[in-house]
Amino acid sequence: MTHLQIDKEGNEGIANVEFCSRSNETRRNRRLQSFVDSYGVEKPRLSTFEQTKRYTKKKCSSISFECCTNIILNRIPLVRCLKTYNLRKDLFGDIIAGITVAIMHIPQGMAYGTLTTLPPVYGLYVSFFPVIIYMIFGTSPHLSLGNSLEFNIISDSEACVLGTFAIVSLMTAQAIGSVSLEPSNMANQNGTIANLTSSSSIDIKLHAATTLALLVGLIQLLLSFLRLGFLTVYLTEPFISGFTTGAATHVFTSQIPSVFGIRSPRGINGAFKLPRTYIKLIQSIFSHINWISTAIAAVSIVALYIAKYLNDRYKSKIRIVLPLELVLIVIGTTVSHFLQLHSKYAVAVVGQIKRGLPAPSLPSFDHTDKLLVPAITIAAVSLSISISMAKMLSRKHTYKVSSNQELLAYGMANAVSSFFQCYPSAGSLSRSAVQEGSGGRTLLVGGFSSLVLGCVLIALTPLFQPLPMACLAAIIIVNLKGLFLQLKDFVLYFRISKLECILWTMTFVTVVLFDVDIGLYVGLCTSFFINTVRTQRPRFFVLGQVDNTGIYKSTTNFPSVQQYPGIQILRFDESLYACNAPFFKRKFYELIGMETIEEPIVSCRRPETVDMKTDVLFKYIILECSPFNYIDTVGAKLLIQIFNDLKKRDIQLYLTECRYEVRHTLDIMKFYEKTELHTIYVTTHDAVMAAVAALNQIPVANN
Amino acid sequence: MTHLQIDKEGNEGIANVEFCSRSNETRRNRRLQSFVDSYGVEKPRLSTFEQTKRYTKKKCSSISFECCTNIILNRIPLVRCLKTYNLRKDLFGDIIAGITVAIMHIPQGMAYGTLTTLPPVYGLYVSFFPVIIYMIFGTSPHLSLGNSLEFNIISDSEACVLGTFAIVSLMTAQAIGSVSLEPSNMANQNGTIANLTSSSSIDIKLHAATTLALLVGLIQLLLSFLRLGFLTVYLTEPFISGFTTGAATHVFTSQIPSVFGIRSPRGINGAFKLPRTYIKLIQSIFSHINWISTAIAAVSIVALYIAKYLNDRYKSKIRIVLPLELVLIVIGTTVSHFLQLHSKYAVAVVGQIKRGLPAPSLPSFDHTDKLLVPAITIAAVSLSISISMAKMLSRKHTYKVSSNQELLAYGMANAVSSFFQCYPSAGSLSRSAVQEGSGGRTLLVGGFSSLVLGCVLIALTPLFQPLPMACLAAIIIVNLKGLFLQLKDFVLYFRISKLECILWTMTFVTVVLFDVDIGLYVGLCTSFFINTVRTQRPRFFVLGQVDNTGIYKSTTNFPSVQQYPGIQILRFDESLYACNAPFFKRKFYELIGMETIEEPIVSCRRPETVDMKTDVLFKYIILECSPFNYIDTVGAKLLIQIFNDLKKRDIQLYLTECRYEVRHTLDIMKFYEKTELHTIYVTTHDAVMAAVAALNQIPVANN
Repeated sequence: MTHLQIDKEGNEGIANVEFCSRSNETRRNRRLQSFVDSYGVEKPRLSTFEQTKRYTKKKCSSISFECCTNIILNRIPLVRCLKTYNLRKDLFGDIIAGITVAIMHIPQGMAYGTLTTLPPVYGLYVSFFPVIIYMIFGTSPHLSLGNSLEFNIISDSEACVLGTFAIVSLMTAQAIGSVSLEPSNMANQNGTIANLTSSSSIDIKLHAATTLALLVGLIQLLLSFLRLGFLTVYLTEPFISGFTTGAATHVFTSQIPSVFGIRSPRGINGAFKLPRTYIKLIQSIFSHINWISTAIAAVSIVALYIAKYLNDRYKSKIRIVLPLELVLIVIGTTVSHFLQLHSKYAVAVVGQIKRGLPAPSLPSFDHTDKLLVPAITIAAVSLSISISMAKMLSRKHTYKVSSNQELLAYGMANAVSSFFQCYPSAGSLSRSAVQEGSGGRTLLVGGFSSLVLGCVLIALTPLFQPLPMACLAAIIIVNLKGLFLQLKDFVLYFRISKLECILWTMTFVTVVLFDVDIGLYVGLCTSFFINTVRTQRPRFFVLGQVDNTGIYKSTTNFPSVQQYPGIQILRFDESLYACNAPFFKRKFYELIGMETIEEPIVSCRRPETVDMKTDVLFKYIILECSPFNYIDTVGAKLLIQIFNDLKKRDIQLYLTECRYEVRHTLDIMKFYEKTELHTIYVTTHDAVMAAVAALNQIPVANN
Repeated sequence: MTHLQIDKEGNEGIANVEFCSRSNETRRNRRLQSFVDSYGVEKPRLSTFEQTKRYTKKKCSSISFECCTNIILNRIPLVRCLKTYNLRKDLFGDIIAGITVAIMHIPQGMAYGTLTTLPPVYGLYVSFFPVIIYMIFGTSPHLSLGNSLEFNIISDSEACVLGTFAIVSLMTAQAIGSVSLEPSNMANQNGTIANLTSSSSIDIKLHAATTLALLVGLIQLLLSFLRLGFLTVYLTEPFISGFTTGAATHVFTSQIPSVFGIRSPRGINGAFKLPRTYIKLIQSIFSHINWISTAIAAVSIVALYIAKYLNDRYKSKIRIVLPLELVLIVIGTTVSHFLQLHSKYAVAVVGQIKRGLPAPSLPSFDHTDKLLVPAITIAAVSLSISISMAKMLSRKHTYKVSSNQELLAYGMANAVSSFFQCYPSAGSLSRSAVQEGSGGRTLLVGGFSSLVLGCVLIALTPLFQPLPMACLAAIIIVNLKGLFLQLKDFVLYFRISKLECILWTMTFVTVVLFDVDIGLYVGLCTSFFINTVRTQRPRFFVLGQVDNTGIYKSTTNFPSVQQYPGIQILRFDESLYACNAPFFKRKFYELIGMETIEEPIVSCRRPETVDMKTDVLFKYIILECSPFNYIDTVGAKLLIQIFNDLKKRDIQLYLTECRYEVRHTLDIMKFYEKTELHTIYVTTHDAVMAAVAALNQIPVANN
C-alpha cells in the first residue's frame, strides 16, 4: 500500500488531488477483468478444510506455559483481583457497597421469591449463593447477580433503562408450575389433589426449580464453551420491548391475588390464558376479598411510589440511596406484628421461615425432559439481560467485559447454586447501579454483600414472619411502572418503521394472549421473517447521469438527470437472492420495456407466433450491482438467464460495480463461461461510455 | 428528464462524453445537501392513511360497467375461450389431448388414490371433478389438475423437472390418518378398535379427506382474495429440494407393505417415526411376506423402468406418448384375473369398486380444528407446485398466467370437488407435459378428458377389481426415481454455498426424522434464519484510491491502492441493522485503531483515568454507505452514537453514497439535528477531497 506523503509535500499535496483529467482516458471502457488484472490480487479461496487446518496450526503454535497460566487466570478473575488488591484504597468502598447492596437484596429477594410461587426465603438464598460464585468467575465489579429483578433494555446510545422486569422469576414460576400440576406428581405425594399449598407441593416445586437452575447453568456453560455468546444479538430492541411489556401483564396478573388477599386461580393454561384468568380473578375478588390486605397493598403502593418520586427528585441533594423497600418491609412487619393482622384479620403473611443456610443437596433429575425447553428459554433471556448490563457498565468505566467469560460466570453461578436450593438467577440493574454508585471498586463487593446476607439468613429471618404478602406485591407492582411505560415504544416504532412496529406488536400480542415462552419463539421467528420481508420488494430505479458528471442517480428523485437513448441504467436496491428473484425478474423486464402489460391478460388459446414486443427500445442495459452485497445460486442463475435472454434479442447486458462476493458466486455458478467475460465494468460511468461508443459505431479498444 | 440527442448530433455525439474534465472543480467538496438542493427533488413521504386514500380514489374512479364485465370475464376465462373458439382449428387437437390425458389419469389416479390410504376409486374422482372446475376458472390450457402426482422444482433458468412427488397425497394420508386413529372415532363406530379396514373406518377417513379438501379450497380462495399469491416465493429452491427428497423417503416407506404384500404398521408417530416404522416393517416382512406380490412388484418396477428408459431414448423417433402405466395396469389386471391371484395366492388387489359417479354431499365439519393446520400446509404446498408449473408452461408459450387467478381456480377446484368425495388436488407436471405435447390448444381439453374419465367411472371400474396393489406401488416407486436423484443437490449446494447447504440438510433431516409438516415449518424458519445469518458478519473493508482515479477499492483485494495519511476509508458490506450493529461497532473501532485489543483483558478494578488510546491515528473517517440498502432504528442510533463519540475525540466522520432510504431513516431518527448536516457527501472521492483539503488547512468554500 502506498501512502501519499502529503505532510512532506506540504501545500503541494493538493496537487495530487487534481488527477481526474489525467485519468479520463483510461477510465473509459474500463472492463473489470483488465482492471483486476492491473490492480487487483484475487486471492485463492481456501477450502473449509484448509481454513480449519491453518487455524488449528496457528492456535497450536502459540501454546506455551505462560499462555496456559494466563488462560486459567483469565477464567478466574478473582485471583488477579486479590493479587492486586489495595487494602487502603479499595477496602472501605467495597464494604460500604457490600452492605448497601445487601440491604437491597433483602426486600427484592423476598418479593421475587414469592413471584416464583416458592416461599420468600428461597429468594434470599438466590441473593446469597450466585453472588459468591459470580465473585469468583465474573468480570464486572459492579454487576449484582441474584434475583432477576429486571429485564432491561440498555440502549447503547443513551444508556437509559427502559424498563424493569421480573421475567426470569416469572418464567421459573411457569416452568415449575407446569411440573407440579401434573396428576402423577399430585397422586404420588398425597393420593389426592387436595392440599396444594402443603409442604409436599412446595417440595415438588423446589425440586423442579433447582433442576431448572442446574439445566440453565449447564446450558450457559455449554454456550460459553462453544463461544456462542454472540447469539444474543438476535434479541433485538423492538423484540425485547414488546416481549417485556407483554410479560409485565403476566407479572401484574400474578400479583393481584396477593393484593386482594384471595387465592390465586389454578390450572389455567393454553390460549387466551390471561382473559380467562381475569374472569376467575374477578369472580374470586367479589366473593373472597380481604379488605385489610387490599388497604395495606394500596397504602404500600402509594407510599413507595411517592417515596421513589421524591428520592429521584432530590437524589442530587441527599446523595444517599435510601433503602425504601427495606423501610416498607420493616414498617409492614412491625404494623402486622402489633395489630396481629394474620390471626385477627386473616391477612396472608410470609409465615414460618426456615432459619439458617440450606444444606447442599443434589438436584433431582425427575423432570429434565419437561424442563429442558423452559431452561433454554430462561438461559437465553437471563444471559441477554446480564451481558447487556455488564457491557453497559464496562463502557461507562472503560474496562473490557468478555461475553464468553460472563457466560461462564453465569453458568457456574446457576449450576453451583442449584445444589443449594436456588432457582435460576440473573443480573439486576437497580442493584448494579447502587453497587456502582455507593463506591464498590472490586469484585470483593459481592463477598461483603453475601456476608451480610448470610448473617440475616442465619439470625434475622424469623423476624419477617408477620410481613404481609401485600407489601411484597406492592414492591413488585411499583417496579413494573417503567415496563408499562414501554407501551410508548409502540407509538415510536409505528412512526419510524412499520416492520419494527409489526415485530413489537406480534411479540406483545402473542405473549399476552398465549404465553411468555410461545411469545419468545413467535417473536424470534417474526424477527427473522421481517429481516426477509425487508429485502423482498426493494426499490428498482432507472438511473440517469447527473449534469455531466460520473454520478448516476435515480430519475424519480433527481428529475433533471440525463438519459442516453438506447441505454437503460438500472439499480435494484437489495442483494439479489431466492426470495426477491421473482420480483427482480418481473420488474426488470418491465423497466426495459418488455412485458409491460400490468394487468394479466387471460389467454384462452395458444398464441401463434406473436412476440410480446418486437420493437426493442434499448440496445444496452446497464445494471448497477453496488447494492448487491451477496447473491445466491438462484440470483446467479437468474442473471445468467436474463443475460442469455437479452442476447437472443440482440440486447447487451452490462453489470457494474460488482463486489468481490458477487463475482465469486458468479464465478462458481459459471457465469463467465455461460456469458461473456467483458460484461462486468468497474463503474457505471465506464459501462455507459462503452455503450455510447458502441452505439456510435466507433471501434473501442479492449484494454 | 433530458435525453441527450445523440442521433441528431450524429457523430458529434461523442463530444458529450468528454465532460469529466469540466466537472472536476464542481466535484470537489460536493456535499450531499447542496447536491440534492441543486439536482434533486425530495418528494414528501405520504402517510399510510394518505396512501390508502389515494389508492382507493384511483381505484374507485376507474370503475365502469365495461370494467366490471371485464373483471368478471377475467375471473371466468372459459367464457372468453368459448367466444373465440375455432372449431376447425382447435377441436381435433383438444379431443386427442383430452383422450391422452384421460388415459394417463386412470393409472395415476388409482395409484395415488391408494397413497392417501383410501380405496383407489377416490383417486379417479379427483381426476374427474377438479379438472372440470379448473376448465372454468383456470388460465392455462395445458395444466392438468387432479391427483398431485408430483412435486416439481421448475428451475427458471432451465425449465427442467428436478423431481416428481406425490406429496399432497401423502400429506392427505397423514392428516386423515391422525383423525381416524382417534379413540373417540373408533369407539363411536364399533365400540371396539378391532376392524380398522372396515367400511366404517374408510367412511371416517373419507369424511376427513373431503373436509380437508374444502378447507384447502377455502384457504386458497382466501389467499386469492387477499392477493397473497406472492407468498410462495418463500419456498426457495434448496428448501423445496431438501423437503421433497426427505418426503420421498416417507412415500417410499408407505409403499413397502404393498410391495411385500404385508399389512402396514399402524399408530407410529412422533420423533424418529421412520426408523421405528422400518423395524416394524422388517419384522412384518420376515413373518408375513407374500412372495407372489413381491414378484409382481419387482417385475412391474423393472418393466416400467426399462420401458420409461426406452421411451425417453426413442421419443424423438416415435413421436407418440406411450401410456406405459396404463399398459402395466391392463396386463396386471388380466394376469391377476386369469391366475386368480387374490383367491389362490392371497395377493392384495384393488377389490370391490363403487360404480358410477358419487352423489353430491356436504362435507362434515367434525374435525375442522385438527385438520386446519394440515390444510394450511397442503394449500401452501399444492399452490406452489401448481403455480410454478403454470408459469413454466406460460413462459414456454408466451401467454400470461396470473398467480391470483390461478389461486382462485385451485381454490374453486378443491372447494367444489369436496362436495363430490374428493381429496385435495394439485397440478401434475407429467400430465401437463402430455397435454401440451399431444396438441391440446384450449381450456376445453379438460372437458374432453373428464368426459372420457366419466365414461370409465360409469362403465369400466369393475374391470379393475383384480388389479394387484403391487402394480400401483410399482407405479409410485418408479416415479420416485427423479426425486431421489435430488440427493445430488446436497453435493451441489455444499460446493457452492454453505448456507444453502445447511438449509437443504436441515429440511431434509427434519422431514426424515420427524415428519413432513414439522420439516416444512422447520425448513421455513431455517430459511428465514439463514437470511438473517447471511447479513450477520459481512466483510468490513479498508478502502484505498486506485491509481489516481475516483475509484476506491479494498486494500485486501487491491494491494496497490493508495491511502491518505490521517484519513481512513471504510466500507461495511451489508445493510446496518439490529442484528449486525454490535459486530459493526466492534469492527469499526478496531479498524480505526481504537480498542484494538483482541483478547479481553479482565480488569479487576476501576481504572482511574486511562483512556484506551490517547494517540489518535486518523483525523477523518469516511464510511462508504453504498452497501446500506436500508438501516433500521438501531443502526441509525449507532451511527449517531459513533459520530458523537468520534466528535469528542476530535475525529470527523463523513458518510458517502447514502441511498434515499438510508437518508430518510437518518432523518426521522434526527441524525441531522444530533450531528452536523454536512457530514454526508455524494461520493467517496468528494469526501476524500474535502478531508485532504481540510488536513492541509486550506479553507474550503461550502457551496
